[in-house]
Amino acid sequence: MSIALIILAAGKGTRMESDLPKVLHPIAQVPMLLHAMRAGASLDPDRVVIVAGLGAEAVTKVVLEENDDAQIVIQEEQLGTAHAVDQARNALEGFSGDVVVLYGDTPFLQSETLERMVAARASHDLVVLGFEACDPGRYGRLVVNQDGLSRIVEFKDATEAERAITLCNSGLVACAASTLFELISDVRDDNAAGEYYLTDIVALARTRGLSATVVTCDERETMGVNSRAELAEADAVFQQRARADLLESGVTLMAPETVFLAQDTVIGRDAVIEPNVVFGPEVTVESGATIRAFSHLEGCHVSRGAVVGPYARLRPGAELAEGARIGNFVEIKNAQIDEGAKVNHLSYIGDATVGAGANIGAGTITCNYDGVMKHRSKIGAGAFIGSNTMLVAPVTVGDHAMTATGSVITRDVEPEALAMARVKQENKPGRARKLFDMLRAKKARLNKERS
Amino acid sequence: MSIALIILAAGKGTRMESDLPKVLHPIAQVPMLLHAMRAGASLDPDRVVIVAGLGAEAVTKVVLEENDDAQIVIQEEQLGTAHAVDQARNALEGFSGDVVVLYGDTPFLQSETLERMVAARASHDLVVLGFEACDPGRYGRLVVNQDGLSRIVEFKDATEAERAITLCNSGLVACAASTLFELISDVRDDNAAGEYYLTDIVALARTRGLSATVVTCDERETMGVNSRAELAEADAVFQQRARADLLESGVTLMAPETVFLAQDTVIGRDAVIEPNVVFGPEVTVESGATIRAFSHLEGCHVSRGAVVGPYARLRPGAELAEGARIGNFVEIKNAQIDEGAKVNHLSYIGDATVGAGANIGAGTITCNYDGVMKHRSKIGAGAFIGSNTMLVAPVTVGDHAMTATGSVITRDVEPEALAMARVKQENKPGRARKLFDMLRAKKARLNKERS
Amino acid sequence: MSIALIILAAGKGTRMESDLPKVLHPIAQVPMLLHAMRAGASLDPDRVVIVAGLGAEAVTKVVLEENDDAQIVIQEEQLGTAHAVDQARNALEGFSGDVVVLYGDTPFLQSETLERMVAARASHDLVVLGFEACDPGRYGRLVVNQDGLSRIVEFKDATEAERAITLCNSGLVACAASTLFELISDVRDDNAAGEYYLTDIVALARTRGLSATVVTCDERETMGVNSRAELAEADAVFQQRARADLLESGVTLMAPETVFLAQDTVIGRDAVIEPNVVFGPEVTVESGATIRAFSHLEGCHVSRGAVVGPYARLRPGAELAEGARIGNFVEIKNAQIDEGAKVNHLSYIGDATVGAGANIGAGTITCNYDGVMKHRSKIGAGAFIGSNTMLVAPVTVGDHAMTATGSVITRDVEPEALAMARVKQENKPGRARKLFDMLRAKKARLNKERS
Repeated sequence: MSIALIILAAGKGTRMESDLPKVLHPIAQVPMLLHAMRAGASLDPDRVVIVAGLGAEAVTKVVLEENDDAQIVIQEEQLGTAHAVDQARNALEGFSGDVVVLYGDTPFLQSETLERMVAARASHDLVVLGFEACDPGRYGRLVVNQDGLSRIVEFKDATEAERAITLCNSGLVACAASTLFELISDVRDDNAAGEYYLTDIVALARTRGLSATVVTCDERETMGVNSRAELAEADAVFQQRARADLLESGVTLMAPETVFLAQDTVIGRDAVIEPNVVFGPEVTVESGATIRAFSHLEGCHVSRGAVVGPYARLRPGAELAEGARIGNFVEIKNAQIDEGAKVNHLSYIGDATVGAGANIGAGTITCNYDGVMKHRSKIGAGAFIGSNTMLVAPVTVGDHAMTATGSVITRDVEPEALAMARVKQENKPGRARKLFDMLRAKKARLNKERS
Repeated sequence: MSIALIILAAGKGTRMESDLPKVLHPIAQVPMLLHAMRAGASLDPDRVVIVAGLGAEAVTKVVLEENDDAQIVIQEEQLGTAHAVDQARNALEGFSGDVVVLYGDTPFLQSETLERMVAARASHDLVVLGFEACDPGRYGRLVVNQDGLSRIVEFKDATEAERAITLCNSGLVACAASTLFELISDVRDDNAAGEYYLTDIVALARTRGLSATVVTCDERETMGVNSRAELAEADAVFQQRARADLLESGVTLMAPETVFLAQDTVIGRDAVIEPNVVFGPEVTVESGATIRAFSHLEGCHVSRGAVVGPYARLRPGAELAEGARIGNFVEIKNAQIDEGAKVNHLSYIGDATVGAGANIGAGTITCNYDGVMKHRSKIGAGAFIGSNTMLVAPVTVGDHAMTATGSVITRDVEPEALAMARVKQENKPGRARKLFDMLRAKKARLNKERS
Repeated sequence: MSIALIILAAGKGTRMESDLPKVLHPIAQVPMLLHAMRAGASLDPDRVVIVAGLGAEAVTKVVLEENDDAQIVIQEEQLGTAHAVDQARNALEGFSGDVVVLYGDTPFLQSETLERMVAARASHDLVVLGFEACDPGRYGRLVVNQDGLSRIVEFKDATEAERAITLCNSGLVACAASTLFELISDVRDDNAAGEYYLTDIVALARTRGLSATVVTCDERETMGVNSRAELAEADAVFQQRARADLLESGVTLMAPETVFLAQDTVIGRDAVIEPNVVFGPEVTVESGATIRAFSHLEGCHVSRGAVVGPYARLRPGAELAEGARIGNFVEIKNAQIDEGAKVNHLSYIGDATVGAGANIGAGTITCNYDGVMKHRSKIGAGAFIGSNTMLVAPVTVGDHAMTATGSVITRDVEPEALAMARVKQENKPGRARKLFDMLRAKKARLNKERS
């Protein structure tokens, strides 16, 4: 069966107090909307329609970066969930498969849950996702009888008996596209809020003799985000699960609560992660690597046996081969660090390759930017780069070559050669004493003038 | 009505195990005593009297920095709270307004609570601040009858019936100055501890036919600090509230529990604060700025759209204009960074101005200290400072000027000029191999000699 | 009485999902096994026998580093706890004192508990350590009658009445060596698991008319570690206690939950530890020192009044004298920093001594490695090292000497002398503009070619 996703992403999110559309606020460093899109992607949908509203331009950009086949439709006025789904009608003109409606602000929905919804379509016309609520509060209630789901009743319209129901509505539905849009055409806004509610399609379906059923999931999957506090809480829930998964798989987290992971962080068995490490998106750490305290990693790969930090920053494109060593106050960007190479102290290595076993002295900088363009540096295997060497890119230092401490290297260095750019040291006896005396006298004079 | 504050700050704080007077231990990076002074300041008091004891010199220094009109009186012996208040008698000689007595070690008291105490003075001679205790334990109990507050009974003197009272004494009182000191003159020390208790003035007042009433506040406002553990807990309570306030106002805190705020931290709507950020005193961050992980800010201003960190340290006097960019392992002190200027890597910019759009290369240092005095550096708009440039202050680099990588700049550079101080690179073929061979041979020889 | 310890350390720890033997996983940065060894060491044992299994080589290395008199015996097959203890029989051949059997994976056992076990041996042949369990679950139960401990019953073999017992078995026993090995000889493996259980010796002892008793401890002391999650939890328990102890003794921890301590961290009264500080092994911080946020300390000593950080890394061998100051993005390794010396910014000081009152400019590096060997730098008292000075070791800078900013110092500098290695600055008017124009034109050309 061909599947279309409709993801509602037009909500204002007033309580977020933000100019950023609610669905673009990130959890685990990924916009909430992408969590929903990725959960839905597991259904291998033929069509993905995002219903955007406020900030549609920003939403469009994020959506297309994730999936350039996705369609974005705009809900100009916010007239209710049925109205929102209806905005996808033209986009799905002629589509004859099933539609799953989901939400851009419920980031914890599991793929497996969506798959069960789709599977339930085999025996029912309409599938609604529900959950057993700990505290049902003001959620809509799912009224189930011997024929399946009979209707969804809003809390404020519910009788005492109905309010005692703990099976609640998540808002997600699965249905044939044709049926969905037919039902939606019949939804009315003759209610207190004057809105078109998607929930009304259940009663309309049953009236027509269609069958409806409920698929249930854990309440936590349906957790929505409506404020910054809820956003932080959702991130905390994500982190807690992700850390537990890593521990389970054999990763040491010395202080799990101080390690922050992204949605796609991959860490191998027997890797050790010390306290206070932040993982941005697209990081993989192999088995047996060590990430020391206060390190920050984004878009990088750390191979087996490599040691990173403390205070190492790996930026996108940093590729560490086996046994590489990145030390403190070191930034690596878009650079390949080969087997056993060391960059131990106070260095910036950007747009570069560092050969196997090379030793990069403290304070080394690849000067990759000339004020207009970026250029690459190549450092050969076994090279010894003296402390405070400036490598003015584009430049190549050959295998087993050396650079003298404090040299500015502007021309290529052949293998096994020594490059120097250094001035002879002069010692001026007694001069430091004279300078100190002079400076102190000047200071005293200035202080006197001021007073 | 004219107001005088008497703040009791003489307590030994034995359980703090400290040489520092208890009231000077900080919460949210501000000495506890200042929290009390600032809460009291909202009453716009004409007089502020601090009763100090141990470490009075240190207390005096902190008090006068906050309010140089404050008077410090010394309680030489610790003979009870009434005795402590009595030390302020001479300092308030001739003062005819109201006195509010508060404590230097209860940092959470709200201004609004003090305002309600003062307002209640309109209809009562004596006002006592009480609270409904979750677990009244050994607190003094407030005995209230139809005429108002009848007396305060210490736990150990209380009957079973009185111990059942949950309305407890905070110790704060508001009263006319003349009445207060008259009542205190009658307080006796004929109790087990041999101390003069301020609480006794309630019964003394009622005996004289004066009226007394209770104003209540949340128990948490009266939280006192008596040990380092309670200090840490009080700080945690402060942090939790301050973080919740920021979230409410539309600030993103990715991991709120890892962000540490000072009492006066101001952060604008839609600012994003990543994990592990520490704010010292006097920091303002405008709307839409981003503070990345592992950053440390004190006494600085970050404008709209600026991005700070990760691993950026902004010290007092750092002023970042809109869109400025401070990157990793960078320290900024007493420096103005203009619109869109960038200091991305491993730099120290102190006592300086950096013009709009200037690009400061990695490893740049403003050499602001000559061993005796500090001097300023000026970098013009659009200037390009090559990596590892040393700017020996005082020095000026003009607009759109350049400095060559690795140059020590001791003289001013005109606008649009290029300044260089660089040695020509020499490559010595085969010399690296010889050096490696020589060093390895030497090492082998040394190892042999040692064994 | 002479004591022998037998520490069982052969467990596979399958749930750890690790190639590292379970007992080598660290808590508070010390392998679990060493926690057990150190608790046992308080008994001043004459003999220490470690029963290793998987990864015995790695275990041996760790054990001998801690105590080179310890004996390691190998349990080739894992046939139960009695079988494990039996592996120590030959090693203890001829030993006539008492044996205490403990476990390499219960790191919280207190010395005082072991001492009570040994003391109880005075009046009983066999002593078993038990604990009152909150939730006895599937623990073995200690069946006690008027004659003392009658037997240990495994949960699965227990009657309903026995299951109601809450006094549970920790597995630790104390016994005369000769008795222990005699009893073990009689243990059979005729149970469901086909294992030889140490617990069976209690019933065997009673059958022979020997007396047995129970010594109890807090359940938390017997906490074992079987997974990475439990490892992290055990570390958290350790941290919580260690932080509470520091607070109690008069150390300020601004945010205790963000400070990570090692087992042997020593911090003096009135020291202040800011948020996010990590202590590795062998650190002592004296009274009144301040460790600022984001600092990382290992194997170092910080004296009274010294200030470290933020973002300071002290590595093994860093010795800070009184009033020394180590600032941000500074790494100190194997170096003595004398009274009042300052290393404030972006520096690496390794294998060095820095004299009293010396000022080390920003960006200074001791170039201690020549690619093959390490060498030392000596900086004299009151010296002023200009920013970005490279000290190519071995090298000495005399007292009150100076180095000019940006100099590479390869030869010794006499006291009070000024050392320079600097090129004269040249300004080339208009050259920056030309360079920018040229680079921009080139970029435009390249962009054109690409499109």
